Amino acid sequence: MTRLQTVARTVFFISDRTGITSETLGHSLLTQFENIEFNLVRLPYLDTPEKARKLVRLIEDAHAHEGQRPIVFSTLLDDEIRVIVSRSQALMLDFFDTFIGPLEQELGVESTHKVGRSHGVGDFAIYNARIEAVNYALAHDDGVSTQHYGAADIILLGVSRSGKTPTCLYLALQFGVRAANYPLTEEDLDRDALPSVLIPYKKKLFGLLIDARRLQQIREQRRPNSRYASPQQCRDEVRRIQQMFRSERMPFIDTTNRSIEEIATTVMAETGIQRQHF
Amino acid sequence: MTRLQTVARTVFFISDRTGITSETLGHSLLTQFENIEFNLVRLPYLDTPEKARKLVRLIEDAHAHEGQRPIVFSTLLDDEIRVIVSRSQALMLDFFDTFIGPLEQELGVESTHKVGRSHGVGDFAIYNARIEAVNYALAHDDGVSTQHYGAADIILLGVSRSGKTPTCLYLALQFGVRAANYPLTEEDLDRDALPSVLIPYKKKLFGLLIDARRLQQIREQRRPNSRYASPQQCRDEVRRIQQMFRSERMPFIDTTNRSIEEIATTVMAETGIQRQHF
Repeated sequence: MTRLQTVARTVFFISDRTGITSETLGHSLLTQFENIEFNLVRLPYLDTPEKARKLVRLIEDAHAHEGQRPIVFSTLLDDEIRVIVSRSQALMLDFFDTFIGPLEQELGVESTHKVGRSHGVGDFAIYNARIEAVNYALAHDDGVSTQHYGAADIILLGVSRSGKTPTCLYLALQFGVRAANYPLTEEDLDRDALPSVLIPYKKKLFGLLIDARRLQQIREQRRPNSRYASPQQCRDEVRRIQQMFRSERMPFIDTTNRSIEEIATTVMAETGIQRQHF
Repeated sequence: MTRLQTVARTVFFISDRTGITSETLGHSLLTQFENIEFNLVRLPYLDTPEKARKLVRLIEDAHAHEGQRPIVFSTLLDDEIRVIVSRSQALMLDFFDTFIGPLEQELGVESTHKVGRSHGVGDFAIYNARIEAVNYALAHDDGVSTQHYGAADIILLGVSRSGKTPTCLYLALQFGVRAANYPLTEEDLDRDALPSVLIPYKKKLFGLLIDARRLQQIREQRRPNSRYASPQQCRDEVRRIQQMFRSERMPFIDTTNRSIEEIATTVMAETGIQRQHF
């Protein structure tokens, strides 16, 4: 494939701490410029003036090499470090610098300017709750155990490979939500009724649907040329599970074109489940 | 405990899509105002003018009830929706609106203004790689299988309850990194040498250390009054694993006061492992 060769523009994501906020921010913005090639550089834990001066040299090198100034997305709380970086030639878009002023004015107080509160350990009890949610998801993955369904915030149902496991883990890690999942097997679908173990928890059930062709594609990668991955089998399971979701009047969503983040946040929005921690 | 009762100020996190960006942003900023109480409301998938007008009514109600105007953190790409919300009385801090202009000017092109690229499914191959990383982490959790260590990006070592499992899952879900973990047992520590199964992968090993008192606290919650949770046992394991990390010249970090995000991003920064997807 031939294409017009242009020099990619270097973009730095920098932060005093994890860099998660500046990457999230910066990436959201860059996706709005589809036809431009970027060279992404992540520099978390930029927490000393020495590191800041080293970054300035990287910025100068990239500028000289590419003939266009780099872009810096940053969340820097330390004034000294921010001043060093802002004296470089880069276009610097600093998230704190931009929004903290209007917020201080609105709230009538000064900010604490403490580094790294947003992804830190925070309260020990909240931290534990999150780890417990992960342990819960692992213990109740794929119907392994149905013993503590009473403690679940939600129980996801779907055919094998419809996205249940990653969604449960994401709900636990990101939001501290206790999510179990139950794989509906062929026998369950043959009976055309909810497995009896699920009946007491009907209000917690949420279905994940998936397009049969996409399902087939995913299963084929996993077990090539198997009955499990055959078009007929996938179509059949999808058709029957959709029937069950409808006849049981369960809420469900189609996961086919949704990312894990989208599935998880949609499930939360539709059920009203709240995140348990930030 | 008595404290001055003030009315909490309502803060809305709104978005066309998942709301992850506006929550991350807004939360980072709010943590800088420790003594102010906020009433947090999340409204993802705010994607119709009707929903926007409903939000405006919520803003007006909160304003009237609390006597101070709400704060809105938003990432709205749809102009019509943004205009409706911006006409409310809230202090609106819109992330796209603020930064997209300077970026368009710098890059010399208009942004595509497409909704929800940042947490969407994106490229199918990349999506699969991420799911495969989650499956890998699950299959190689807690030394369950050491069969495919050759495919690991990293192998975490640590005593039981030092944070290995959540860190591996976070690395997989958030960054598409293949992370295995191996629990060093008492017998491993008694031998004071790396288990032979790990020796071929020495360059991939990374140690997680934890403070003995914190370890004891965590284990006590899990198995109260057990030998496993006794102060003596925890001190002993921690001391010996630290010895092993040192004698094997392995990189390691202390997880005691670090969140999962901090452990994961520090491991990546120290080893130079790159994220496999955004």
